[in-house]
Amino acid sequence: MILLKNVYLNGKEQDVLIEQNKISKIAGKIEAGSAEVFNCSGKAILPTFCNMHTHASMMFLRGVGEDLPLFDWLEKEIWPREAKLTEESIYYLSKFAMLEMIKTGTTMFLDMYFYIKSTIQALKEMGLRGAVTYVGMDMFDEKEAENRISAAQKFLNTDFDTELLVKGLSCHAVYTTSEKLFREFKKLCRQKGLILNVHASETQKEVDDCLPKHGQRPVELLDSWGVLDEKTVLAHAVHLNEHEIELVKKSGAIVAHNPASNLKLNSGQMPLQHYLDKGLRVTLGTDGVSSNNSLSMIDEMKIAAFSAKNVANDSTAAKVQDVFDMATKNGFEALGLKAGQIKEGYLADFMLVDLNNFALLPNVNLISNMVYAADSSCITDVFCNGKCLMKDKYVPNEEKIVSDFKRVCEDLL
Amino acid sequence: MILLKNVYLNGKEQDVLIEQNKISKIAGKIEAGSAEVFNCSGKAILPTFCNMHTHASMMFLRGVGEDLPLFDWLEKEIWPREAKLTEESIYYLSKFAMLEMIKTGTTMFLDMYFYIKSTIQALKEMGLRGAVTYVGMDMFDEKEAENRISAAQKFLNTDFDTELLVKGLSCHAVYTTSEKLFREFKKLCRQKGLILNVHASETQKEVDDCLPKHGQRPVELLDSWGVLDEKTVLAHAVHLNEHEIELVKKSGAIVAHNPASNLKLNSGQMPLQHYLDKGLRVTLGTDGVSSNNSLSMIDEMKIAAFSAKNVANDSTAAKVQDVFDMATKNGFEALGLKAGQIKEGYLADFMLVDLNNFALLPNVNLISNMVYAADSSCITDVFCNGKCLMKDKYVPNEEKIVSDFKRVCEDLL
Repeated sequence: MILLKNVYLNGKEQDVLIEQNKISKIAGKIEAGSAEVFNCSGKAILPTFCNMHTHASMMFLRGVGEDLPLFDWLEKEIWPREAKLTEESIYYLSKFAMLEMIKTGTTMFLDMYFYIKSTIQALKEMGLRGAVTYVGMDMFDEKEAENRISAAQKFLNTDFDTELLVKGLSCHAVYTTSEKLFREFKKLCRQKGLILNVHASETQKEVDDCLPKHGQRPVELLDSWGVLDEKTVLAHAVHLNEHEIELVKKSGAIVAHNPASNLKLNSGQMPLQHYLDKGLRVTLGTDGVSSNNSLSMIDEMKIAAFSAKNVANDSTAAKVQDVFDMATKNGFEALGLKAGQIKEGYLADFMLVDLNNFALLPNVNLISNMVYAADSSCITDVFCNGKCLMKDKYVPNEEKIVSDFKRVCEDLL
Repeated sequence: MILLKNVYLNGKEQDVLIEQNKISKIAGKIEAGSAEVFNCSGKAILPTFCNMHTHASMMFLRGVGEDLPLFDWLEKEIWPREAKLTEESIYYLSKFAMLEMIKTGTTMFLDMYFYIKSTIQALKEMGLRGAVTYVGMDMFDEKEAENRISAAQKFLNTDFDTELLVKGLSCHAVYTTSEKLFREFKKLCRQKGLILNVHASETQKEVDDCLPKHGQRPVELLDSWGVLDEKTVLAHAVHLNEHEIELVKKSGAIVAHNPASNLKLNSGQMPLQHYLDKGLRVTLGTDGVSSNNSLSMIDEMKIAAFSAKNVANDSTAAKVQDVFDMATKNGFEALGLKAGQIKEGYLADFMLVDLNNFALLPNVNLISNMVYAADSSCITDVFCNGKCLMKDKYVPNEEKIVSDFKRVCEDLL
């Protein structure tokens, strides 16, 4: 049991009781004799972030090949280095990514990358949640499709012995992955009630290449393959026409918006406010650090708001509560977790922020301050699933996580 | 004398000696018996930021009236609160603004606001530099113009007894300020070699209103009034046509780019890369927190880069070194200070950053990491004019600065 005393919540100081992995009680004053007590005067409690699209282990590529055109960057800088990755290096890279997530207030992320067992091992040790997906990408090779399908089945049948893991599958994109693989992966996901994660309509080129090949746009194609439903996450989804927006709405599919990556790679800007007006379920993600270059969901919120106002040509687009919800509750809900809000009965994933930090003053609108002014220096403590992962800005073993990361980077760079 | 031992600079560990207010020597090993020694292993030295456009004392308005249309926001939320400001409140608001600047690595700012004596008193106490300008705005009332001109003369003749102050004048904008006031203020500035600071072409509306009234666009008008030269700072300068870009180039006038404010208020996006290609002198500013909502130049760099790529439709626009220079050396140069670079003979305005901070790893490209990944948690120490303003993330008296600020906000909000 953990008792937070005098923590600022909904405009006043309250006590919050954590039992097991849940927020069990919120009240003016709570007595709980045996609880570990945190004195939270001068701190507010907020839900942690859910990063709905990333490739966590790309950490080693931060700042590599900056300012190059896309193709030079991929071919000369990124791919040759990714080819050197191993099960072991991914373990250390993942841990470092999770350190950055914890420091910036994220306790759940949806990941798409290689060597997922290492990522799962890392999250068990670090104590935050991950929706770790096995990736389908066959380059339209039937043999490769078979291999990926059986590997996915094996992954789904493996018990990793942790409630922190939410299993899922990914299909990379319509330009790298066959219809067969999409259909089979979706079937596996449906059998187990899991998420299917897909890059969809990230660039105009993806749409322009898809149309002559398939006679349909990417999201139309996914719909015709029966892939769209309320457990499908469409990462990016920048270039949708009105018909595709209707398909996404009707199916209940989830949009994972990555505004920083979209701007950095000049993929275009998603019309966020239009999607919200149409009733789409929009969540927020950072993408990998090679195209952002940060895993901070705080930065991402500010950029999401600015990008949305720009696309909508309206300074009132992307209201602060909508943006904050995209970064918190919408993501947890999409992944089937009762989290992302500070309420009784919800999972105890939360952060404490220092109300005397320069960026959170004056405290007229805490949510606006988080979206537009905050940075990681505001966050003092992070809890996930009822356990404290960062206390007074310190994550256990962080020096070792950093030194392991530096060593691995030397090998890879 | 201050001796920085083993500080990371230009790819290797070096020693840096500070004598009086300057960087006097940089070498592999320096011995200096009587110097105060800072062990800087694991830290890099970087120039501090120069914030070229702000209204520092607007701090009390952070988060006030969020998500409202411009006119409602100004009329109902901002103006009535600004009307309550006093000489005394501005003193406390300024100090808090300077606390945020120091925490985020800024040691010089160009300010335009009321009660400037309070702001100057605050910067003397806080120890960072300010280009504090007396503001001309007469709403085309000749009597008011006379008042402002004599007040400006009085300000310019006052000795404030500090080398931290760079005096200057502001003319608010062509839609609030008469030709006479512009001409007289520029004359005063020329006599003393000072900066004239002007809001110019921030919005399309400003251009659209100017054309029928004057038969010229705002920057053309400023040119015809003889106001443009290498000591004129054009804040925003979003909406310039090619002729105006030529006028700015020819005159040597300085552009103060405020990408966050421009996006938040939906003023439009400045074509940064085009201005750089044309050889304009571009600097960076945050604007006031009521339209940003942060004084962090780190955030501003990332947003500047993203905005520039979007406008140019080119992911290679706004190279990291160009963006970093805009935030550092270009600003100091514009204000006539030999600072903004870590070189012998330059003013000792610099910060130390923690190379083991998550955001600065891997250290493949420190400048890219500062532009795209850093936040204030990376900055451990800040020096200005040879004096330490923040040591190990602590600014002397910060608790009192915060509590005074909170008290003043209660009165104003």
